Amino acid sequence: MKVAVLGASTSKFGELWSLSPRVLLKEVVTEALNSSHLKLGEIDAIFVGNMLSGILGGQEHLGAFVAEELGVTIPAFKIEGACASGGLAVHAGVTSILSTLYKKVLVVGIEKMTDHKPEDTTSALMGAGSDEERTSGATFPSLYALIARAHMEKYGTTEEQMAQVSVKNHYHASLNGKAQFTFPITVDQVLKSPLIASPLKLLDCSPVSDGAAAIVLSSENEITQKIKPVWITASALATDTLGLAQRKDLTSLSSAQKAAQKAYKQSGLKPEDIDVAEVHDCFSIAEIIAMEDLGFFPRGLAAKNIALGKTRLGNKLVVNTSGGLKASGHPVGATGVKQIVEITNQLRGVAGKKQVKDAQIGLTHNVGGTGATAVIHILRN
Amino acid sequence: MKVAVLGASTSKFGELWSLSPRVLLKEVVTEALNSSHLKLGEIDAIFVGNMLSGILGGQEHLGAFVAEELGVTIPAFKIEGACASGGLAVHAGVTSILSTLYKKVLVVGIEKMTDHKPEDTTSALMGAGSDEERTSGATFPSLYALIARAHMEKYGTTEEQMAQVSVKNHYHASLNGKAQFTFPITVDQVLKSPLIASPLKLLDCSPVSDGAAAIVLSSENEITQKIKPVWITASALATDTLGLAQRKDLTSLSSAQKAAQKAYKQSGLKPEDIDVAEVHDCFSIAEIIAMEDLGFFPRGLAAKNIALGKTRLGNKLVVNTSGGLKASGHPVGATGVKQIVEITNQLRGVAGKKQVKDAQIGLTHNVGGTGATAVIHILRN
Repeated sequence: MKVAVLGASTSKFGELWSLSPRVLLKEVVTEALNSSHLKLGEIDAIFVGNMLSGILGGQEHLGAFVAEELGVTIPAFKIEGACASGGLAVHAGVTSILSTLYKKVLVVGIEKMTDHKPEDTTSALMGAGSDEERTSGATFPSLYALIARAHMEKYGTTEEQMAQVSVKNHYHASLNGKAQFTFPITVDQVLKSPLIASPLKLLDCSPVSDGAAAIVLSSENEITQKIKPVWITASALATDTLGLAQRKDLTSLSSAQKAAQKAYKQSGLKPEDIDVAEVHDCFSIAEIIAMEDLGFFPRGLAAKNIALGKTRLGNKLVVNTSGGLKASGHPVGATGVKQIVEITNQLRGVAGKKQVKDAQIGLTHNVGGTGATAVIHILRN
Repeated sequence: MKVAVLGASTSKFGELWSLSPRVLLKEVVTEALNSSHLKLGEIDAIFVGNMLSGILGGQEHLGAFVAEELGVTIPAFKIEGACASGGLAVHAGVTSILSTLYKKVLVVGIEKMTDHKPEDTTSALMGAGSDEERTSGATFPSLYALIARAHMEKYGTTEEQMAQVSVKNHYHASLNGKAQFTFPITVDQVLKSPLIASPLKLLDCSPVSDGAAAIVLSSENEITQKIKPVWITASALATDTLGLAQRKDLTSLSSAQKAAQKAYKQSGLKPEDIDVAEVHDCFSIAEIIAMEDLGFFPRGLAAKNIALGKTRLGNKLVVNTSGGLKASGHPVGATGVKQIVEITNQLRGVAGKKQVKDAQIGLTHNVGGTGATAVIHILRN
């Protein structure tokens, strides 16, 4: 597989009450096109990753909405898979290039979540789960709390180790001007933050966010001398049951394991080849499990290694340089696209203060719900 | 382009209060697989066309939902583009086969619309339009009424000619056991039916419906002797403004014209080559405009020709043998897939009483909203 990322851009993530979807879209698309040295007229199709525009905004024609806002009449699609919508949109974009039907495409992830009553957003997010979870009143923190309890029981993972995930990601975000939270935090602050769903505290949880991200993809044949492309060398996904009750095991996500196996096979790479990864830390426990599902650490040893700082900036493998979902923010449909933007910037060496030295190979891990969808991309120079 | 339709199935369309999405899904997928001589385990990915599962059902992870219901963990996507969601899902399926990432894929269209309060469904459907249309209280009948008025003024199209569209489609549906309305109607009945949005009467409007449809697609290399495939020789789409106020002209859909031009170019075929077509007659005027956008009749002459019975069963070009959206029903996400099912059955010669004699080439025309998205497929033996 050889699809190029020509350009990439992300907006600031946060509570962006003064910015409409229109403004966010234009900002990231303009920047992604500029960094691709392309004009909008050269783009053949648009893939939009978004989860909540229908439930929260009443808008269920988002592909055409984005095309109209940009002033074009090219093919446009909304791709939806809960919090993995962005990753699925990237995969759809990659597929469209490989099909040769389209030569240069734009992938946009966008979500506006903070303009609504918090209970409406929380309820809408349960659209990612099973009917039973939704109607029984479960929320995502409560579902990930069950996962955390199972992991603690099986492997002895501790609340302090989970807190270390948030501490690392806030540290990385403090180097990222576009992150929602740019302040560092301590383990003590995490442990003393309000309990949300035991054992998860407020600072174990990613926030509700607004934001957008965009990338431009093309085939190998479209590369001009102006561009130093980053190559997508694997794009793979798998699914699992929507609900936790139907799973054999809560201590790993089988969708992420399957998608990772496919991605490593597609690229001919191994976990130890990865220099930098953006993973789906919607809750601190999720990053611990991701490290194990992706093969970065043996089962039961990720928490300890994260707590030892092994995935912090300055190490051989650096995870969530953007600050992850926890600290960079989690506008759900944008997250999977933003992960590609961050890895692209890292591999181009333009990631600023959070640059991983000589990063050559990167991975993204985007999850929908509690793992009913998982999408993995591997990128390289 | 050479992608094969291996198998195809549609459920009955109608007010299916006793049938859940789960039941509808399993019915159409089982039949589509059986007619493909394939087992579920041979399918590589699932593309789901749906518009309203989020707004009306709270479910925003529909790809994984369908995969779970079928008992598989393969890649699954929801593709959304309002009433063109089904056609977009077919296009995404075609693209995935051409990419060579997937060898055999399932495309499913599904919608449950009648289990809700009618005003909720009407309001949710406005998700296909512009913010301005939605917030000003416009409904789709009122928007298509404006289109009808413009067409009447420019070309002298009459209410009686529009009524003839519904009369023809009800006649075709009377030969289709899976149609929502299997009774014939007369021009007089249409003209005397309750006024919805002048000049459109109740019997100019497609109904609110439940239903599902499924097809199996593969590359040329996957064909076994058991199967007589139908080939997708063109798959094209275009977009336009969401709102009518931004259009230069209301008497044609520029998205449909552009998509049709691309589709004819892709296939090397011309309008006069088409034997049978399924077009998006959400309102009677929409079929008249479709005939002109697709090049079947010169501008301003379609209404007259339809009224003369030129697109009725028994003629050189037959339109909406299923009964169209008007009489077969319009479960929005299912419609674009059902159109492919109907054309596949026609080209295979298994369309029963509504069979077009010696049909060799067919076309589908699926529209989102008032034409912000249009998807055209051309199929041939």
